[in-house]
Amino acid sequence: MAKLDESLIAALAPFQKLDRHQIREILDQAVPKRHDEGSEIFREGEEADRFFLLLDGFVRVVRTTPTGEQVILRHIPPGQLIGIAPALGRPTYPASALSASESLTLAWPVRLWAVFLERYPGFASHAMSAMGQRFQELHDHVTELATKAVEQRVAACVLRMVNQSGRKVEGGIEIAFPVTRANIAEMTGTTLHTVSRLLSAWERDGIVESRRKHIVVTAPHRLVILSGATG
Amino acid sequence: MAKLDESLIAALAPFQKLDRHQIREILDQAVPKRHDEGSEIFREGEEADRFFLLLDGFVRVVRTTPTGEQVILRHIPPGQLIGIAPALGRPTYPASALSASESLTLAWPVRLWAVFLERYPGFASHAMSAMGQRFQELHDHVTELATKAVEQRVAACVLRMVNQSGRKVEGGIEIAFPVTRANIAEMTGTTLHTVSRLLSAWERDGIVESRRKHIVVTAPHRLVILSGATG
Repeated sequence: MAKLDESLIAALAPFQKLDRHQIREILDQAVPKRHDEGSEIFREGEEADRFFLLLDGFVRVVRTTPTGEQVILRHIPPGQLIGIAPALGRPTYPASALSASESLTLAWPVRLWAVFLERYPGFASHAMSAMGQRFQELHDHVTELATKAVEQRVAACVLRMVNQSGRKVEGGIEIAFPVTRANIAEMTGTTLHTVSRLLSAWERDGIVESRRKHIVVTAPHRLVILSGATG
Repeated sequence: MAKLDESLIAALAPFQKLDRHQIREILDQAVPKRHDEGSEIFREGEEADRFFLLLDGFVRVVRTTPTGEQVILRHIPPGQLIGIAPALGRPTYPASALSASESLTLAWPVRLWAVFLERYPGFASHAMSAMGQRFQELHDHVTELATKAVEQRVAACVLRMVNQSGRKVEGGIEIAFPVTRANIAEMTGTTLHTVSRLLSAWERDGIVESRRKHIVVTAPHRLVILSGATG
């Protein structure tokens, strides 16, 4: 296989304090893999034998309840580490990662986690603040589910995806990865029926446009008001 | 002030790999403090200038929404570290800690966090797995709020407190810290009215006994069934 080019990761947050030689070392130990939309990158409960960098695409982190319901915990944008169970002292993955769009990952064997922490300046503190950010997001998610009405939750969820991945298109801002109404229900703890009813109403009101798996927000300020963010 | 005795912390998870001399060093730098029931130990958003060990009592970790609603994220039992924002690379506390019962903490200035990690064997790996466990609990909490019906959530919440702190009393297992119906509403994202209705029904059915701020579970197996844990 052709060598991975250093420019792939040199500018990314986990590695940006490293020199060319260190970047080369890291890439030479990485296993690249392409994932189709919807395919599984790792599974909840499996032995966490590798950690990953998401180079391109978006990842959906999900848990499945004992009764088979799926809950989407978060989406992860490109440039971030995933599957970092070793940072939590865990032998297994705490959730599953699905490729939300076509995506590309680099994987390293888990024994290299401690080596990366020790050898590469900035890697440990990046990993720590990445954990801190996900912790904060989980606190926000719990708070939202516990206190917000359904319409506010769905509006906040759409806004979060826009903030994380939005790209300008004609007439508004598009969420950069495929997302279905069922996905939104799985993020907000509500039913597909309720999400459909809300999105249809917002569409009539000129707030969003949604086509199969694609959502464009045409009036973000109105969605902010609906999300209750203004108190 | 009298010296703190080494037996106070030598057996606790964060310090159990240390020798007497190291335990002494740690205690000599600690500031002990007693907290009344309901008092604040640290506040969300404040500069995280100290980290703590909860020596005795229970702590309630809460967030307040912009509209003033309170959400209880978790309870922490004695023997655990709290306020460990530095482990998340954060300059401020991500939530507030209230003393759920009368409690006793030891506090250290935040600059000692890195010193503890480096100098004391077992401290870093303990801190990491403590984070991992809280991460897991947050995942469970999100999943529960997103998928379970209200009665299941309230049952699961009472069971969690029993598992974490239950002590045998005549006729059942008592939650070891004061907990009100309003607290349960703040943990489960429901109303005080709903919690009262459920607890009254369970009381009639012989599943729990509740008196002012005290809950005794008299038929835990029936609560497990109500929580939906059996799928």
